[in-house]
Amino acid sequence: MSIVISKADIENMNSRFRATFINSIEGFKSFNLVATRSKAGISNVAPFNSIMHIGSNPPLIGMLIRPETDEHQTLNNIRETKGFTINHVNENILQKAHQTSAKYDSNTSEFEACGLTEQISDHSIAPYVKESNLKYTLTLKEIVPIALNGMNLVIGEIQEVLIGECNIEDDGYVHIDELGTLTCVGVDSYFKVNNITRLPYAKK
Amino acid sequence: MSIVISKADIENMNSRFRATFINSIEGFKSFNLVATRSKAGISNVAPFNSIMHIGSNPPLIGMLIRPETDEHQTLNNIRETKGFTINHVNENILQKAHQTSAKYDSNTSEFEACGLTEQISDHSIAPYVKESNLKYTLTLKEIVPIALNGMNLVIGEIQEVLIGECNIEDDGYVHIDELGTLTCVGVDSYFKVNNITRLPYAKK
Repeated sequence: MSIVISKADIENMNSRFRATFINSIEGFKSFNLVATRSKAGISNVAPFNSIMHIGSNPPLIGMLIRPETDEHQTLNNIRETKGFTINHVNENILQKAHQTSAKYDSNTSEFEACGLTEQISDHSIAPYVKESNLKYTLTLKEIVPIALNGMNLVIGEIQEVLIGECNIEDDGYVHIDELGTLTCVGVDSYFKVNNITRLPYAKK
Repeated sequence: MSIVISKADIENMNSRFRATFINSIEGFKSFNLVATRSKAGISNVAPFNSIMHIGSNPPLIGMLIRPETDEHQTLNNIRETKGFTINHVNENILQKAHQTSAKYDSNTSEFEACGLTEQISDHSIAPYVKESNLKYTLTLKEIVPIALNGMNLVIGEIQEVLIGECNIEDDGYVHIDELGTLTCVGVDSYFKVNNITRLPYAKK
């Protein structure tokens, strides 16, 4: 290996460098917009790269939300209304999706501020992102606190899935690359993908 | 949208179809090999697609481990020894990495069975995967149980990072695409990436 980085090296990094470095080595992540709406009717949309598989029966999805602050509208709205949507990001809306990470005040809808379009859901108070090609609504099931650093793991159950034009295999596999879905490293580097292969179930 | 899938549609899917479908719509994930060694000295290596960012100071990484069974060697070894390594997967070792998902018994090392090479770490009882171009050792910090379905969120602190030849920016960003690191959908579909852009910090 060309570079060996010790624990002391990491401790001695300045905090922004360290955050970017650690985020990079974690590898490629899903890049999604999470949309909510407050009781007062203000919609919110924010980027999340921590969507994870919790279970498929019932269909449960988790995501991490950073330590709570007054400004964390996504978490506040989910607590208030129990509803949220997860929306894949494609190249056509990449700039707008990234822009939703800016700190807008709680009276501003990031949809309007960033030029994205709300799409009403029949299953949630939370809107979809119209420009997204794969999206689903969820109902809050549990918030698991992570004592170590004050994060919350928010777990929701899928209520409805909307999918654009793409192939879905007989075994349930959805070709999300055909929808233009992107992946990311950290919070600012974005990638298109090329499928190499799909491998059969591994046997001894 | 061409397809609308309701909650009832999901409930009516057969269980394998549903698992593949739900895993697909979660988007692209990191694809890593997690290596451990038991107290008895048997090494283990297994694929994980749930690596997540917990924090950068201290540098904390999390991963989800499915409901416990007697066979879950990775979790058993981490409990016993506190050590594990996370190893990026590149195209050269893709078939071998996928093969580690087969069910070997606890007296078999997946390194040998799958043709991967152990690399001793100075910082952990757990070995690295020699063929991996970016890898790090961790020490167990916390296991957070997820009551909803018996999963465990395993959180470790990084002790050392080894990185192959690639560019690292002045702000800490590591070009992991230059190392051939892959991304995946679900547990069997693998992708190469092409960088589109890295965007500046978004301001209002």
